[in-house]
Amino acid sequence: MRNLVPGHPSGRLSDAWRFCVGTGRFELALRRDYQDSLALVQREIGFRHIRGHGLLSDGMGVHQPYEHAGARHVRHSFTYVDQVVDAYLELGIKPFVELGFMPSGLASGDQTVFWWRGNVTPPSSHREWADLVKATVTHLIGRYGLDEVRTWPIEVWNEPNLKDFWQDADEAAYHRLYEVTAHAIKDVDASLQVGGPAISPGSDEWMTRFADFVTERSVPVDFVSRHAYTSGPAQHVPFGVHQTLRPASELLEQFGLPRRQLAGGPLAGLPVHITEFNSSYRPDNPIHDTAFNAAYLAPVLAAGGELADSFSYWTFSDMFEEVGIPTALFHGGFGLLTHRQVKKPTYHLYAFMARMGDQLLTRGADHLVTRDATGRVTVLAWAPVDVTGGPPVDGHTVRLSVPMGDAVSAFMLRSSVSEEQGNAWTAWCEMGRPRSPHPRQLDILREAAEPVRSHRNLPMTGGFVELDLTLGRHEVTLVELTAVVDETPPWWDDSRILGLGEGIA
Amino acid sequence: MRNLVPGHPSGRLSDAWRFCVGTGRFELALRRDYQDSLALVQREIGFRHIRGHGLLSDGMGVHQPYEHAGARHVRHSFTYVDQVVDAYLELGIKPFVELGFMPSGLASGDQTVFWWRGNVTPPSSHREWADLVKATVTHLIGRYGLDEVRTWPIEVWNEPNLKDFWQDADEAAYHRLYEVTAHAIKDVDASLQVGGPAISPGSDEWMTRFADFVTERSVPVDFVSRHAYTSGPAQHVPFGVHQTLRPASELLEQFGLPRRQLAGGPLAGLPVHITEFNSSYRPDNPIHDTAFNAAYLAPVLAAGGELADSFSYWTFSDMFEEVGIPTALFHGGFGLLTHRQVKKPTYHLYAFMARMGDQLLTRGADHLVTRDATGRVTVLAWAPVDVTGGPPVDGHTVRLSVPMGDAVSAFMLRSSVSEEQGNAWTAWCEMGRPRSPHPRQLDILREAAEPVRSHRNLPMTGGFVELDLTLGRHEVTLVELTAVVDETPPWWDDSRILGLGEGIA
Amino acid sequence: MRNLVPGHPSGRLSDAWRFCVGTGRFELALRRDYQDSLALVQREIGFRHIRGHGLLSDGMGVHQPYEHAGARHVRHSFTYVDQVVDAYLELGIKPFVELGFMPSGLASGDQTVFWWRGNVTPPSSHREWADLVKATVTHLIGRYGLDEVRTWPIEVWNEPNLKDFWQDADEAAYHRLYEVTAHAIKDVDASLQVGGPAISPGSDEWMTRFADFVTERSVPVDFVSRHAYTSGPAQHVPFGVHQTLRPASELLEQFGLPRRQLAGGPLAGLPVHITEFNSSYRPDNPIHDTAFNAAYLAPVLAAGGELADSFSYWTFSDMFEEVGIPTALFHGGFGLLTHRQVKKPTYHLYAFMARMGDQLLTRGADHLVTRDATGRVTVLAWAPVDVTGGPPVDGHTVRLSVPMGDAVSAFMLRSSVSEEQGNAWTAWCEMGRPRSPHPRQLDILREAAEPVRSHRNLPMTGGFVELDLTLGRHEVTLVELTAVVDETPPWWDDSRILGLGEGIA
Amino acid sequence: MRNLVPGHPSGRLSDAWRFCVGTGRFELALRRDYQDSLALVQREIGFRHIRGHGLLSDGMGVHQPYEHAGARHVRHSFTYVDQVVDAYLELGIKPFVELGFMPSGLASGDQTVFWWRGNVTPPSSHREWADLVKATVTHLIGRYGLDEVRTWPIEVWNEPNLKDFWQDADEAAYHRLYEVTAHAIKDVDASLQVGGPAISPGSDEWMTRFADFVTERSVPVDFVSRHAYTSGPAQHVPFGVHQTLRPASELLEQFGLPRRQLAGGPLAGLPVHITEFNSSYRPDNPIHDTAFNAAYLAPVLAAGGELADSFSYWTFSDMFEEVGIPTALFHGGFGLLTHRQVKKPTYHLYAFMARMGDQLLTRGADHLVTRDATGRVTVLAWAPVDVTGGPPVDGHTVRLSVPMGDAVSAFMLRSSVSEEQGNAWTAWCEMGRPRSPHPRQLDILREAAEPVRSHRNLPMTGGFVELDLTLGRHEVTLVELTAVVDETPPWWDDSRILGLGEGIA
Repeated sequence: MRNLVPGHPSGRLSDAWRFCVGTGRFELALRRDYQDSLALVQREIGFRHIRGHGLLSDGMGVHQPYEHAGARHVRHSFTYVDQVVDAYLELGIKPFVELGFMPSGLASGDQTVFWWRGNVTPPSSHREWADLVKATVTHLIGRYGLDEVRTWPIEVWNEPNLKDFWQDADEAAYHRLYEVTAHAIKDVDASLQVGGPAISPGSDEWMTRFADFVTERSVPVDFVSRHAYTSGPAQHVPFGVHQTLRPASELLEQFGLPRRQLAGGPLAGLPVHITEFNSSYRPDNPIHDTAFNAAYLAPVLAAGGELADSFSYWTFSDMFEEVGIPTALFHGGFGLLTHRQVKKPTYHLYAFMARMGDQLLTRGADHLVTRDATGRVTVLAWAPVDVTGGPPVDGHTVRLSVPMGDAVSAFMLRSSVSEEQGNAWTAWCEMGRPRSPHPRQLDILREAAEPVRSHRNLPMTGGFVELDLTLGRHEVTLVELTAVVDETPPWWDDSRILGLGEGIA
Repeated sequence: MRNLVPGHPSGRLSDAWRFCVGTGRFELALRRDYQDSLALVQREIGFRHIRGHGLLSDGMGVHQPYEHAGARHVRHSFTYVDQVVDAYLELGIKPFVELGFMPSGLASGDQTVFWWRGNVTPPSSHREWADLVKATVTHLIGRYGLDEVRTWPIEVWNEPNLKDFWQDADEAAYHRLYEVTAHAIKDVDASLQVGGPAISPGSDEWMTRFADFVTERSVPVDFVSRHAYTSGPAQHVPFGVHQTLRPASELLEQFGLPRRQLAGGPLAGLPVHITEFNSSYRPDNPIHDTAFNAAYLAPVLAAGGELADSFSYWTFSDMFEEVGIPTALFHGGFGLLTHRQVKKPTYHLYAFMARMGDQLLTRGADHLVTRDATGRVTVLAWAPVDVTGGPPVDGHTVRLSVPMGDAVSAFMLRSSVSEEQGNAWTAWCEMGRPRSPHPRQLDILREAAEPVRSHRNLPMTGGFVELDLTLGRHEVTLVELTAVVDETPPWWDDSRILGLGEGIA
Repeated sequence: MRNLVPGHPSGRLSDAWRFCVGTGRFELALRRDYQDSLALVQREIGFRHIRGHGLLSDGMGVHQPYEHAGARHVRHSFTYVDQVVDAYLELGIKPFVELGFMPSGLASGDQTVFWWRGNVTPPSSHREWADLVKATVTHLIGRYGLDEVRTWPIEVWNEPNLKDFWQDADEAAYHRLYEVTAHAIKDVDASLQVGGPAISPGSDEWMTRFADFVTERSVPVDFVSRHAYTSGPAQHVPFGVHQTLRPASELLEQFGLPRRQLAGGPLAGLPVHITEFNSSYRPDNPIHDTAFNAAYLAPVLAAGGELADSFSYWTFSDMFEEVGIPTALFHGGFGLLTHRQVKKPTYHLYAFMARMGDQLLTRGADHLVTRDATGRVTVLAWAPVDVTGGPPVDGHTVRLSVPMGDAVSAFMLRSSVSEEQGNAWTAWCEMGRPRSPHPRQLDILREAAEPVRSHRNLPMTGGFVELDLTLGRHEVTLVELTAVVDETPPWWDDSRILGLGEGIA
Repeated sequence: MRNLVPGHPSGRLSDAWRFCVGTGRFELALRRDYQDSLALVQREIGFRHIRGHGLLSDGMGVHQPYEHAGARHVRHSFTYVDQVVDAYLELGIKPFVELGFMPSGLASGDQTVFWWRGNVTPPSSHREWADLVKATVTHLIGRYGLDEVRTWPIEVWNEPNLKDFWQDADEAAYHRLYEVTAHAIKDVDASLQVGGPAISPGSDEWMTRFADFVTERSVPVDFVSRHAYTSGPAQHVPFGVHQTLRPASELLEQFGLPRRQLAGGPLAGLPVHITEFNSSYRPDNPIHDTAFNAAYLAPVLAAGGELADSFSYWTFSDMFEEVGIPTALFHGGFGLLTHRQVKKPTYHLYAFMARMGDQLLTRGADHLVTRDATGRVTVLAWAPVDVTGGPPVDGHTVRLSVPMGDAVSAFMLRSSVSEEQGNAWTAWCEMGRPRSPHPRQLDILREAAEPVRSHRNLPMTGGFVELDLTLGRHEVTLVELTAVVDETPPWWDDSRILGLGEGIA
């Protein structure tokens, strides 16, 4: 059966999917490989904001205590912050500011998280923390202007509901931190946007209590935030883990939860940002390198914008060091890109989304169809995935009748990634999984990572193009259709070209 | 039947194919599109020299007569020459200098050739011509150094055996010009290389008489040169022609002729440069845009180095104006690249040659096999072409047993162009042949022009990889084989990755 | 005596000076040196529009007649037009379209102008001309969009009042051409802007008659245009001329004339574009290479915006071939830049203007003072010039009291060009005037061409900075003043730094 | 009195000064600002090698222990090493490998050095250390080739004679480490170059004992190394220090010491590398930002090549974190460049050296004169410095008679830095010492950091140019002289150019 695509849009396609993307800690943004990767991502995808940990951690050098004339002072220093934010803005992306972790000179304890040791204890002085927040925001406004900075959401801390990220997962302590921070920010300028509680899945009730807390004490809040992941417990192997996965629909479930939780209350209607999401929350799960991951997330990107104001893929690059420095090019990292810019299938899912039009024509279980202002119609289709570990389906079909106006034919360009196509990981396995590929191998991997593209002139009948798309295993495919204007001159005869006697095109 | 590739090289693969490439007139080298194209060509192919007409024509401004104090003088000016040669050297390519055509201020008549009006008459003063030659060579040495300039062959005029290129095809006049020029060059420095007679096919006897002439009069000569084309008479349509074509073996025939002609004489052993060759000699024959052209020339590139010291493809870019300014992106131009750097199939033939190793393992009617110092084996294979206009063969097979040492398996990367694959012209036809494609169409064409690539891990048995290559219509394919070093850790189990339960790679 | 600069702006500084810049013929825009130069100009100056001759001349290949099936047809082809306009828009500059000269296939006669032979005769068919105009405009809209193209003024022909540029300077024939063209343009879209008569100085009465003509016959007109030059007759030497010059005030006189001529009539209030101006109208007058030229034009740039909507410097680059191909790096060309991007003093006059603020504080006979939104105050000052050939004044002083708010001190940055400073031509003369400088010489010239810069911390008294500027010969100087925020820490003591015992800064 | 420069060279100018340059820890080389700075340095100076700490420290991720099947294993991983070395080679610079510090997984203790905590304890297992060294060297050879890697000196540890850098400054433990390491390297390939003992000044006797040790036990050694500094004890202020300085001649003294110490022994004749030197050994001493530092080091660069095979400036960039993250643009860092590529005076000293010819004409207390193959004569001159803290001398003169062949005149280009000229630090002070300059301030600083250049045509008399150089405070100046070939045409008359009536040039 063929789905008839309507000729009139049913609405606009939300771009919540591109509002934000995740990144390894702020300090890594100083690196060239990181910036090369981000430049590529921005050129071919184009995110609006970027969010990562560690803005205030020691590696950024912001909080620098010193003694002078017998007294303790603090110098706030933005040497590296400026280098990072300058680079972001040059690359056309804005910070989604996360305030954390604790500078060691201001920490009340020694507990750290990650290989790179972010301190996760409350401040030893809330006044000094407020000064730090104010100095940071004031500096950013001085350098980039208030008009710019007020477009950057500012989120207080990360996943305070987890003991690993906030000492004892102490909710009252988080509320106090939030309150002090929100007031500090608004003291600088009331138009700045502040929000929380940045919780991980599994403590959903924090959201409601956060709403109660800020309401009761009239604490400023401009948005709420949480994370979404669907993976089960980690089964470790050296330099990697395996995990079970729940269906992708659970991600959408998590995206939609804050609106449901806040409905009817004083925070109803506030923007909801899913400030992290992915299949697995582990930076060493090979699932992130597969076409499975792209096909798994395709319906999430297609529909997530109905449920939240943003959902931020964690993360754009494998330049990431939470469990240590990666020991192989493919290591199950979160990145859309590996080090040195090899594109993973999920990268292409995003690049395909970036080519969709803004008029939503239809959305189905395995497809999304849009049109843009020039009349170009774009179809994103994806194969089903089985999270129970069954073999992938090869040969899933998507059949659509696409209205294309009154042209005689349409030019179709199809770009695909799957377990076999446009899949650098597969090529890397065939090469023997070289941990440090040499330059020519990297070039081959980059080429292998390009979607397989095909093109065709499709005749139109009754204003429709008939599309029969057969999908490979875990394939995600993008079809672009444009009406053809035939400029072939009247005297032209391809059969007079040697070798084309029988006609080719 | 399978061809057994020998494990020991039978010699080195000549790189005569990359010694030189042709270009539209010198003046066009000032252009950005030209330089962008040449940069791409040099990055992916890497020619040594470049040769085009018009160094001394008015558009370069070299010969500028003026009056002063009642007398006629000539100012030699190298404003543009320097811009062009600087650009060439920056791009890693050296001039193959062609001296011509005649500056209008030095011409003895009005006859011109081409849309851009190159004057093809003898000099009105051979003394002033000699001064011009000396000033030019002296200037080049002053700027680039004698060590550099002595590596640039200097050819006297172009196709003097044709009335269109040399008034009356006057052989005696050409001999005189050659003599004056050769002496002028050697007067500057005896180590400079000068040669001729740069004849087109069809007047082969000029070569022998040229040899007699220079021998008899002791005129310096460091190399001889001629051209090679295999097309029949032009059948015109607006903005284009069709032509018959003789078999590609005739090109090799022409390449080898000078050595045969000079054998045993005093010029025997001189370098032979085929300073132009192509299938058709017309810049508006669609054959140049096809995969046919690549498959037709593949055996020529594979074997030509046995017959001549160089053979120079005419030309690297469609930036070329001999019959006027092109009116459509694809217009049958000579270029390996269209304007704006869309790669044609013949471009890839050259890019594939550039990936061959320098050890020649074997050469057959439809394949060439080499190895490089790292042990990488490279196979170039091509489908047969039918110059009588029959339909292209689909499914030609090449079967090879390739020795790869003692590895357990090999990584194979295959890159192909054919009438259907890696063929921008086909995509352009499907688009409706837009004469001025808009930017997004250009991007699609550039993508469509990339070879279709596939990769695979091939098991080895008895030290051999068995290759079964099935070729599409007019396909030219490159296979690269490298021995695999398996770095998969002992604990690794792909079946634990979700979606890969049955194994994929 | 010191001039007291007012603290409140008297208005906005017009940016008519940057609305447009001139260029050698359209075809030259295909060249890399041209585009390199334009990129530099746009980065440091930033013009809005660019205007040159030859869009429709043969070198652009737009008008291509052909025979088919026994009849004459015309193919309109935009291969090169697209390359040029794409490059312009990438460089952030829009065309100021000049329609001309006549394609040879459409010309009624053989008369040409310039070394590059632009045909200056009326069309043999006004219908075919109208088709050409419509096809051109329609193509541009198709590629760049109507919203974009309607911001490009379209001027009909160039200097029709001169016999060299328009056969017989036939005014009636020009009026007819204008009428046909204006209607052709408006037939494509009524919102496009068309204008004329693009006259050179010396036939001022053409403007009034043009106004009468269009009024009487209701011909569309959206702006009027003319040129302005102040040089006397050419005294030739080989490859150059010398000319007398009238005072710069005459340029302003010419700028203001159209408004005066049209006042009270139906065209009153139309935009007035001075589509060419310079001191000398010759591309081989050494005056263009001198600091004299910059100092001469400084008051014109400072005040011209009061008199016309734009005045377009003729031209931005020495890549220009009207009298032939330049034979030396410095040859008196119009360019702000020589070939290979050596900056002339007039380049810096423009670059200085580009650093002025938009609030006009005061304007005097030798200075212009502005402020921008950040409070930065900018002073442009210039030395007097003597057009009668007297020696340049060395030591002219400009003294200003500049209000800078309540800071304690101001940072002053001064940048200067003069006969001695920031003057590549002077360095070139000292080098022996090498016609083709080698790469290291070019580097030295580029360095010599940078303005001499100095900086200083100036104390403020009563909210004022006291400026005493002494100007060298034909100096143009830019002073930028910013209020200082002192971040020196309390413990800092420069005298503890070795070698600075006595204090330095 | 004028010094007569001899016309015949007395030898070649050693390029020991450019053999190597220092850098902050290896990991910083991943950063973009670092690579931008190194690219600039390589373009304008061109060092051969680069040496820094931390190749084996945790931040590079080379040594990664793990458990598998109940046993401890180590994975050697070169993810980041490859990124750094690839970048170095792309930038035309090779590693001078320093093996250190200790990976925490292999350390025998907890002692660390620097803000970034390099572990300075001996290995817990010398076998595992040897494996690490072999794996590292083997990997480098696999990736870059033996021919390349054998040109990289490999130095064992850093300053083991200091308790801060090597636990207890235990000499026997160092000898053991050296022995194990040297054998491990030679086991990989005997042609690799290994050396030590990399001592800091103040324990000179280590060198002799090192020689005795390796001789006695036949331990391989290909070169010896030490450091050189001349500063006294640190007097701290917040974020900075002040120190006394001994005369620059003491640096030369230290350079020459190893040759004197080893003379007559079995290590006599081995290459001597001064693998670090500077005035002060502190990364927060403002002396490094001054012209004093350049003038102080000028005679060291001019003469050092007579005493050692290399002397490596510590360091090329302020991207350096030993005492923490810098809190201000200028902070007394070692760098030739600040963050964001503002050039310090010492940068120019090196850039001037890079313009010297290879023929040494003469060397004096305040000058160095060379000639290159083209005949260009280059003079480096410097003002005296007073390390006792006296005020700088303003007006020191250097007078030379320079032989320039038989030209009529010479073109002189002079480039200077001093306390007032080409001095960004001075401009930064005048700006109020902004810790985080905004983009426009950075541009101004970069411009202020360019040497002040002047040029002149100098007449020659008797084949000599007479130079009278007056030097400003702590000035270092470069004079380049080239013979002029006068191309002025016979008809040319500058006085006919308006404004030049009296002659200018």
